[in-house]
Amino acid sequence: MFDKVALIGIGLIGSSLAHVMRREKLANKICISTRRKETLDRAEKLGLGDTYELNPEIAVEGADCVIICTPVGVCGAVAEKIKSHLASETIVTDVGSVKRSVIDQVSPHLPTNVHFIPGHPIAGTEYSGPDAGFASLFENRWCILTPEANASPEPVQKLKAFWERCGSQVEIMDPDHHDLVLAITSHLPHLIAYNIVGTASELEGDTRSEVIKFSASGFRDFTRLASSDPTMWRDVFLHNKDAVLEMLGRFSEDLSGLQRAIRRGDGEALFELFAKTRDIRRSIIEQGQDVEEPNFGRDSS
Amino acid sequence: MFDKVALIGIGLIGSSLAHVMRREKLANKICISTRRKETLDRAEKLGLGDTYELNPEIAVEGADCVIICTPVGVCGAVAEKIKSHLASETIVTDVGSVKRSVIDQVSPHLPTNVHFIPGHPIAGTEYSGPDAGFASLFENRWCILTPEANASPEPVQKLKAFWERCGSQVEIMDPDHHDLVLAITSHLPHLIAYNIVGTASELEGDTRSEVIKFSASGFRDFTRLASSDPTMWRDVFLHNKDAVLEMLGRFSEDLSGLQRAIRRGDGEALFELFAKTRDIRRSIIEQGQDVEEPNFGRDSS
Repeated sequence: MFDKVALIGIGLIGSSLAHVMRREKLANKICISTRRKETLDRAEKLGLGDTYELNPEIAVEGADCVIICTPVGVCGAVAEKIKSHLASETIVTDVGSVKRSVIDQVSPHLPTNVHFIPGHPIAGTEYSGPDAGFASLFENRWCILTPEANASPEPVQKLKAFWERCGSQVEIMDPDHHDLVLAITSHLPHLIAYNIVGTASELEGDTRSEVIKFSASGFRDFTRLASSDPTMWRDVFLHNKDAVLEMLGRFSEDLSGLQRAIRRGDGEALFELFAKTRDIRRSIIEQGQDVEEPNFGRDSS
Repeated sequence: MFDKVALIGIGLIGSSLAHVMRREKLANKICISTRRKETLDRAEKLGLGDTYELNPEIAVEGADCVIICTPVGVCGAVAEKIKSHLASETIVTDVGSVKRSVIDQVSPHLPTNVHFIPGHPIAGTEYSGPDAGFASLFENRWCILTPEANASPEPVQKLKAFWERCGSQVEIMDPDHHDLVLAITSHLPHLIAYNIVGTASELEGDTRSEVIKFSASGFRDFTRLASSDPTMWRDVFLHNKDAVLEMLGRFSEDLSGLQRAIRRGDGEALFELFAKTRDIRRSIIEQGQDVEEPNFGRDSS
């Protein structure tokens, strides 16, 4: 599909893309660039690409597709570095969990003869780094693209086809709407998970070790999200502040309502909520976005 | 181990006990009793026991072990019903997620010639009812017993051995301490999960369906806990009010701190929390209380 793809950043998403591009033969040549020499050496040892460059300027030379796979906080700096080295008609995209901020950071730097199409694959694991990637990460997952209204249709179609070859379904969305939807489906869940694990880790004395011992009663589920990459998530919250604060406000209001119901012994209010939340999981399973097996199937192994 | 075990209530825990008792030959005879005829018929169709009784009074006749597997809100009513039908030296236990309230509800009814030893297996799934049980549910999980200080040691040892034969490790604990530890490891996680799924389900228009579509970005994890049995969980919150409100207070304070950090753009505070929460998951995996596979291993299937 592409002659040369430059991957800037080689964490979970970048390395998964490298694997699936190779398997599906989506690029003649993959050039990997990342800031830290140690990470680049690791990527080379894993054989993720064809060439390896510390300088993103060199990496993007002659590429017809550049995929920025860094934490969202450094997208702007990457764009500034590569801007004078991009070939005409190159597709520049990214994989960040926030879209408005990435557009604001990246767009001003890019020349008008390249096609900037922001993207976000809705896929991941709690692991990070070049060792974490695998080719099937994007299978049956959605990928959201947020091109500007005046974007040329051909490169958007090409990038859509690329993600479909990676196993994903593609949805085109307004960047602000993306940021609001992801605030509730992804950013708030991670924030809540980090928070409860933080609360538990500050318990006094024996209780902390008991939290680990008896975690199968519910707590362990949260520790998965709360072991995600700290840099990536710091940047998400700094760059999607408004939408996250909006959703956090709603969550906190609802939680105050539950707190009051518990304090007053209002069993009806509790039952009413607990009975209706089952439907959402059923829909998620029906749409193939989670498994039906008890405990995510993990205890049956 | 026992001649006749009476299971009062045949949900996930009761039916799992029935399966494992049969597999491990822990009872000569299993008598199942539950309030609703429909559920009892289902248990009989599944062949979970040897005899089936709607009246718990009849079910406990001649039993040397009675296990109350109902929601914690009705433990007292069950104890009142069975109290005059218990044989001398019978072990009476339960499986409820709250221990102080169960003791307060059950103890006053029981004659002094039976041994009441409250229990709580730290195991479960998001499914409920007699079809949900399976013999390996308790394997590698903890079971907490909270006998009174003056309890006879032999029946406590016998019940401990029973749970070990079910695959569990047993810990003896003070009931109030149990309720505090479970408030953070189990009750608060479920409350938070129910709450965020409730918040999401009240979103306007298209966003609700998008929450389902893009749930693999984090949200889907919470929907598992939030699809747990509503009656069981209503009772837990009504009967462990003080400890839950205490832990919820800590959680909310910490969340306010995170909210302030996001509003002020304090990346250092966010990074500091996100970096330290990883350790807890590592300990949980090391202690065999969760799997190491990405995404709980569910996407690799």
